[in-house]
Amino acid sequence: MRTEVASLGEFGLIDHLTRNNETLNAGTLLSVGDDAAVIDQFGRQCVISTDMLVEGIHFDLAYTPLKHLGYKSVVVNLSDIYAMMAVPTHITVSIAVSNRMSVEALDEFYEGVYAACERYGVDLIGGDTTSSRSGFVVSVTAIGEVAPDKFVTRSGAKPNDLICVTGDLGGAYLGLQLLEREKKIFMDHPDVQPDLQQQAYLVGRLLKPEPRSDVAAWLDEQGIMPTSMIDISDGLSSELLHICNKSEVGCVIYEDKIPAHNDTRAMAMQFGLSVTTCALSGGEDYELLFTISQDEYEKVKENPHISVVGHITIADKGKQLITKSGNQHPLTAQGWNSFA
Amino acid sequence: MRTEVASLGEFGLIDHLTRNNETLNAGTLLSVGDDAAVIDQFGRQCVISTDMLVEGIHFDLAYTPLKHLGYKSVVVNLSDIYAMMAVPTHITVSIAVSNRMSVEALDEFYEGVYAACERYGVDLIGGDTTSSRSGFVVSVTAIGEVAPDKFVTRSGAKPNDLICVTGDLGGAYLGLQLLEREKKIFMDHPDVQPDLQQQAYLVGRLLKPEPRSDVAAWLDEQGIMPTSMIDISDGLSSELLHICNKSEVGCVIYEDKIPAHNDTRAMAMQFGLSVTTCALSGGEDYELLFTISQDEYEKVKENPHISVVGHITIADKGKQLITKSGNQHPLTAQGWNSFA
Repeated sequence: MRTEVASLGEFGLIDHLTRNNETLNAGTLLSVGDDAAVIDQFGRQCVISTDMLVEGIHFDLAYTPLKHLGYKSVVVNLSDIYAMMAVPTHITVSIAVSNRMSVEALDEFYEGVYAACERYGVDLIGGDTTSSRSGFVVSVTAIGEVAPDKFVTRSGAKPNDLICVTGDLGGAYLGLQLLEREKKIFMDHPDVQPDLQQQAYLVGRLLKPEPRSDVAAWLDEQGIMPTSMIDISDGLSSELLHICNKSEVGCVIYEDKIPAHNDTRAMAMQFGLSVTTCALSGGEDYELLFTISQDEYEKVKENPHISVVGHITIADKGKQLITKSGNQHPLTAQGWNSFA
Repeated sequence: MRTEVASLGEFGLIDHLTRNNETLNAGTLLSVGDDAAVIDQFGRQCVISTDMLVEGIHFDLAYTPLKHLGYKSVVVNLSDIYAMMAVPTHITVSIAVSNRMSVEALDEFYEGVYAACERYGVDLIGGDTTSSRSGFVVSVTAIGEVAPDKFVTRSGAKPNDLICVTGDLGGAYLGLQLLEREKKIFMDHPDVQPDLQQQAYLVGRLLKPEPRSDVAAWLDEQGIMPTSMIDISDGLSSELLHICNKSEVGCVIYEDKIPAHNDTRAMAMQFGLSVTTCALSGGEDYELLFTISQDEYEKVKENPHISVVGHITIADKGKQLITKSGNQHPLTAQGWNSFA
């Protein structure tokens, strides 16, 4: 019998492969299935997350500068650590490189790695360097720390909690569409050099994302403990479904509350795409999605980087989007899937 | 300017890429350049190591059962943790898979991962699962713990210390030669099925290595604190040079003391290879190489899994091999290099 990996999708595959996983160590507080794992280290808690980026799947070296790739490889992992309300402290970086990459190219990649380490106060403490028969592969593991039992999982959302999103959504997806379009034009007409100066925001959202360390720190300072949290790497819809499924609740979000940048709106129009679809199903925004008790609303509404987009309901109500015209649509997971 | 990666080799490349790496966190006790990194977690110490295995470079699926590959992917990382005299507790496993692998094939791979976890009391706590345009890539990070400042690095060897090796060497390299030969015969004559029953030892050394948790635990029980330690993944010569370079010492080892299994000797003869060369320059034995004070000799000589192969000298004496005929040869690094 042969089951295609694509038939399960990434999350189905992870569920399948880890269905019998039993943890043996008492110190394992949180295992597979959240943004990061948590292990108890004699009273203090250590948070661990890992991501792999593969050439041709996650990035295209035709329009991804290596320095940006190095930076982003680190940042996407730090984002998972912040999404636990933890602070990243250390990373390891492993790479597989093909012969066509020179030492100078790898230097550029590491410039980006070190820039991210410096910006977020993280130490590079190890890794592995090997060759590859084909594409460039990067695997980063990030380690962080959190005060005892102060980490935030995907599973604590309660009915009536408010659903919050940081920053704005859909930009990275439109940045990708734009670069793919310009690449195609350049391949067909090598004399036409793309001018992306006007689109610095969208291109930056894709090539140089920043994790929301600022909002995580602000919540901590304000004494606001979210009831659940996840980072938005696969689109708002997919992440919200993770929270609802893990927390065994439903949700309602409002289309007109979903934050989008003006450049995102304008480019969506150019491509004939709905900006809401880009926010719901595009990926790689690396914003935070979290839920809070209604009691925290007064504090949260003062922060310009946070938008309240809806609320949690009991599970029976399902997961709903209320459109601008007042219609109700069930939310479906159409997040980015590398196996699709 | 373009510098080829192969011109630096793996260790040269790592040195180059990490030459300006500065650690910022006070908790970073040991960074890049040993078997594992060590970070202080509020008094207890956490040891972290990571390895990447790439299809076509580190393994050939033509003769590597996926279950064995899963097992080995874990074990090579645990070996690095034991080589710090630490105990592994947790791992993360990330994989990139091409379409040609089915869910059933991945199940086999994970059977091996879980078998290794169970055998060594380690929890699988996370990972990433993505697709690959070409080969199968595995990246494992292992985390372990060690009592404060009881970890053993590569840099503490002192003149007159004894050089010890666990188990026997060269077997995995001959297992690889054997499987490569049989693969070639099978490709040329698909009707000839290889019979490897007689060579279970050598094939097992390559496909299902075990880390030396037993010797690490025994040393700990005996209260023997090695002055330096490393695991033998790239051949005795390369590893011994790492210890000498990091410890700023020289060494003398004796050809007739290097432990080899009878099957290894017999197969080396069949291939017309020197068993000493296989031990010095073959890779993947995953035995431990360590140095101890001469005071510990009486204890160590009672352990049948440990061979004393030479001693540490001052740096000026160089790194020497004394052959069976009494000649002196400088040791050179000809360990396995994925960039060669």
